[in-house]
Amino acid sequence: MTQLLIRDLAQVVTPITGQAPLRGRDLGRVEVVENAYVLLDGDRIVSVGPMTALGALTGSREELDGRGLSAIPGLVDCHTHPAFAGDRVHEFALRAGGATYDELLAAGGGILSTTRATRAAGQMALDAFVARHRDAMIAHGTTTFEGKSGYGLDRETEVAQLTAIRDAGGIPTWLGAHAVPPEQPGADAYVDWAIREVLPEAAAIAVAADVFVERGTFDTAQARRYLEACRQRGLALRLHGDQLSEMGAVPLAVELRARSIDHLESTGADGVAMLAASGVVAVLLPIAALYLGRPMPPARALVDAGAAIALATDFNPGSAYCESLPVVCTLACTQLGLTPEEALAACTVNAAHVLGLDDRGRLAPGLRADVVLLDATDWRHLAYHLAGDVVHTVIQGGQVVRGPA
Amino acid sequence: MTQLLIRDLAQVVTPITGQAPLRGRDLGRVEVVENAYVLLDGDRIVSVGPMTALGALTGSREELDGRGLSAIPGLVDCHTHPAFAGDRVHEFALRAGGATYDELLAAGGGILSTTRATRAAGQMALDAFVARHRDAMIAHGTTTFEGKSGYGLDRETEVAQLTAIRDAGGIPTWLGAHAVPPEQPGADAYVDWAIREVLPEAAAIAVAADVFVERGTFDTAQARRYLEACRQRGLALRLHGDQLSEMGAVPLAVELRARSIDHLESTGADGVAMLAASGVVAVLLPIAALYLGRPMPPARALVDAGAAIALATDFNPGSAYCESLPVVCTLACTQLGLTPEEALAACTVNAAHVLGLDDRGRLAPGLRADVVLLDATDWRHLAYHLAGDVVHTVIQGGQVVRGPA
Repeated sequence: MTQLLIRDLAQVVTPITGQAPLRGRDLGRVEVVENAYVLLDGDRIVSVGPMTALGALTGSREELDGRGLSAIPGLVDCHTHPAFAGDRVHEFALRAGGATYDELLAAGGGILSTTRATRAAGQMALDAFVARHRDAMIAHGTTTFEGKSGYGLDRETEVAQLTAIRDAGGIPTWLGAHAVPPEQPGADAYVDWAIREVLPEAAAIAVAADVFVERGTFDTAQARRYLEACRQRGLALRLHGDQLSEMGAVPLAVELRARSIDHLESTGADGVAMLAASGVVAVLLPIAALYLGRPMPPARALVDAGAAIALATDFNPGSAYCESLPVVCTLACTQLGLTPEEALAACTVNAAHVLGLDDRGRLAPGLRADVVLLDATDWRHLAYHLAGDVVHTVIQGGQVVRGPA
Repeated sequence: MTQLLIRDLAQVVTPITGQAPLRGRDLGRVEVVENAYVLLDGDRIVSVGPMTALGALTGSREELDGRGLSAIPGLVDCHTHPAFAGDRVHEFALRAGGATYDELLAAGGGILSTTRATRAAGQMALDAFVARHRDAMIAHGTTTFEGKSGYGLDRETEVAQLTAIRDAGGIPTWLGAHAVPPEQPGADAYVDWAIREVLPEAAAIAVAADVFVERGTFDTAQARRYLEACRQRGLALRLHGDQLSEMGAVPLAVELRARSIDHLESTGADGVAMLAASGVVAVLLPIAALYLGRPMPPARALVDAGAAIALATDFNPGSAYCESLPVVCTLACTQLGLTPEEALAACTVNAAHVLGLDDRGRLAPGLRADVVLLDATDWRHLAYHLAGDVVHTVIQGGQVVRGPA
């Protein structure tokens, strides 16, 4: 392995050292070193510091000129749905024109329309679709992404989704309980069937399980049965909760010591307090709130109460067709009341913690060599320049996977 | 001039023919031709239609393969502030952290902080900055952009801004009445000075004049004096109005038969009705509302009442650091209640009308050869895919100025 030295960077920026996930005031405490370097060796970070502290180096190395650039940790997208066929642009247009949810369903929209397309796609097509979205994520600075199944809802397609995500380098989550497919008689019967017929294979690929707790989808009793079965197979637990209504997902997540509860657009003060007193990370998805015209999740209240938060894209064809964590950071700073520093920690170290990956999300010796160079001398352009061409170079596990041009 | 044939396009999409600006139901009436071509000759469109109607062509021509792509008119950004030095990322971060407007001013923020940096920059630096932002706009599909002065607020720098915008190919607007610079005793004295000292030179470069009507900046009496003087010099009239408060800008715009009134986040039902009965175009700037956490302008009410609307980025360092009209289209469809079709017409034909340019903004014979090819078989991905890599090829005046890669 040769070393890679990124030298003369305008800034090197990292969330602070400390027990992950970062909470409260620690969330916004980033370290900024001006006129700095990052030294990598193979897939690890060797050291980070001011140029004045860079001693004489022995051996051979490659060098990258960091002048005019700033370095941040590779971004971590801890909630995406990238394994699908087709799109939902027609539904997007109908919703823009004021169609109700029932009208969208009548027009063939909704999750199950993606299920039809995804079941028909086959493994090779799914592999290609996930790889394409993964490449788009990398272009926006994401070096680690989680991907959920949940559009197959049959054994073969759920396994194909998880395989496609894993083979694209993603962290697979089995979202077996996303919706009830049309061939199943109801939610209870479907959960039993999925636990019996899909879980064994899914658990061999996925690292976590996820469930959509919502009115008309799965209630907390069904979610509990699903999650407890998944835990027995060694999967970490996650929940989609409080997106459209408070249905008891927060107490369930806390009781089951889930890794995360995601969405929370409808969470009230009790839910905020309960999460603050727990180890469950609140994963906030402002792009979905934007697309659906929903209220934004109570990010500021959660942080101020001491809850751990993460930010993610929720990339999916129905309600968040956007692979960009920088866009999430802009929304965090303009719609969620978070500072750029809090946003950065929420989509790096805290998002990595949600995925059980404490070897990344910061720039520190020994961690994975995932580094993003921004084309700005002030790293906060990441959030400030909406849809700007800010990502200059992406280094993933020590390899330059995008740019410099 | 050689011809350029773009063939086998999945879709060719254009706002309908008819008197610009399009209003009411006409705004959402786009024509979509499937499996289609666009034929250009020099800087003009020759014809558009289905491949089956493409007759035998004589003479030499270049061809572009449009398979998998869709064609829309080049986008027109009719409201930007691209001629400035420095940035306001520090102010962005302070606002994200909850700072009040007074706190931002105390920290050195606001328009006048950009004035300091812009006055110090010099013509060559301003030229380079505008060219860089122009290139970013092109990358997002903008083939015509308007640019305002208004950060100089002295004669030399206002003229330097207008020159930089013109030389970058933009349509210059003299925003002489943007703020009162510190060396001037007050708004009245400044307006008189600007009319006397700057207008003669500004009018030789700019095609329109603009004024910021807002509490603490310029009132309607000052705006009227400024605009009437500008009209005498042959400039078209525009106003920034109703951004933070209703100050009488709408009645003034209607009375003076201004080309446009821009912002309107605070406009009530009376203003909507007045604009609907007028020829003034309402230019809506949802990115600014997003950045400032303000209510969105009443787009749906304006369209339904019969007012003409346009959409623009408002690109500027303080409240809309985003050069992307596709992002504006996403916000239009998710936050303004507009359909993708209405959004397209609002940032093409109607935006061109605001600039007095009725030779562009549609794909029709005889119009300027400004065409954007989207990397999608359904053109609505323009709005659906937020920050996506949707713009494939940009043709400006018959020249391919971006891609195919």
